[in-house]
Amino acid sequence: MRKNFGAKTWAYPMPVFIVAAYDKNGEACCMNAAWGGIYEENQIMVCISQGHKTTKNILESKAFSVSIADAKHIVEADYVGVVSGNSEPDKMKKAGLTTVKSEFVNAPVINEFPMAIECKLLKFNEDGICIGEIVNVSADESVLGAD
Amino acid sequence: MRKNFGAKTWAYPMPVFIVAAYDKNGEACCMNAAWGGIYEENQIMVCISQGHKTTKNILESKAFSVSIADAKHIVEADYVGVVSGNSEPDKMKKAGLTTVKSEFVNAPVINEFPMAIECKLLKFNEDGICIGEIVNVSADESVLGAD
Repeated sequence: MRKNFGAKTWAYPMPVFIVAAYDKNGEACCMNAAWGGIYEENQIMVCISQGHKTTKNILESKAFSVSIADAKHIVEADYVGVVSGNSEPDKMKKAGLTTVKSEFVNAPVINEFPMAIECKLLKFNEDGICIGEIVNVSADESVLGAD
Repeated sequence: MRKNFGAKTWAYPMPVFIVAAYDKNGEACCMNAAWGGIYEENQIMVCISQGHKTTKNILESKAFSVSIADAKHIVEADYVGVVSGNSEPDKMKKAGLTTVKSEFVNAPVINEFPMAIECKLLKFNEDGICIGEIVNVSADESVLGAD
């Protein structure tokens, strides 16, 4: 027996995407993006609206990383989805997150999350969705099997 | 220690999307779509290229459903990703899949998969990606908790 739920944005399982970029001073910031997915061969899309500090940072730096949060960091992932970098300049520090610069693009990679997709900005498309070209995927050995 | 893997389309966990639509005679067909995700408030996108029978069916019927395959139906989900409806007219039957018409849109809902997102075609966007307006989400009681 099936139940109807109306128009819901449910597509499970859903990865928890944390989008990170540098501002014009080279300071890293990040945000939780609920919606996104692989868009085309070697492309990813994330739905981030104009008002976010991270959106502005991506437009300036032309690059970003998409980390996939894990269950161990649910508090950090939630914090960066609730608090805006526009009103909290110490957002990364207060979230307890540290970054290292990607070897491949001008964007920060968050050390605490085990996997990151490193991207060059391709464009914001006709619907205002951020489209990135995937340049590298990096993963911590802790989430890699022997093969 | 992080390892680099180059440009990969990895964004885990990834739902297994099965896209279904009617042809002009009202026959259901479906395909496995590796890439997609929630696109905007009440919208979903799936990357399906022009050659697919399902793409043609969606353009004609202006509607589709996106089922989320479960581990119990891995063989069926794989079959509809490997075999084309263009060359196998009995694809649904050979896959062992049955459908019922959505109560909300002109598209089939696959009975065997526990959850479906029922959509009206909004457009194929500038990049050729299929964008649907989510009209209803239905789920089988077997995958619903008490709350």
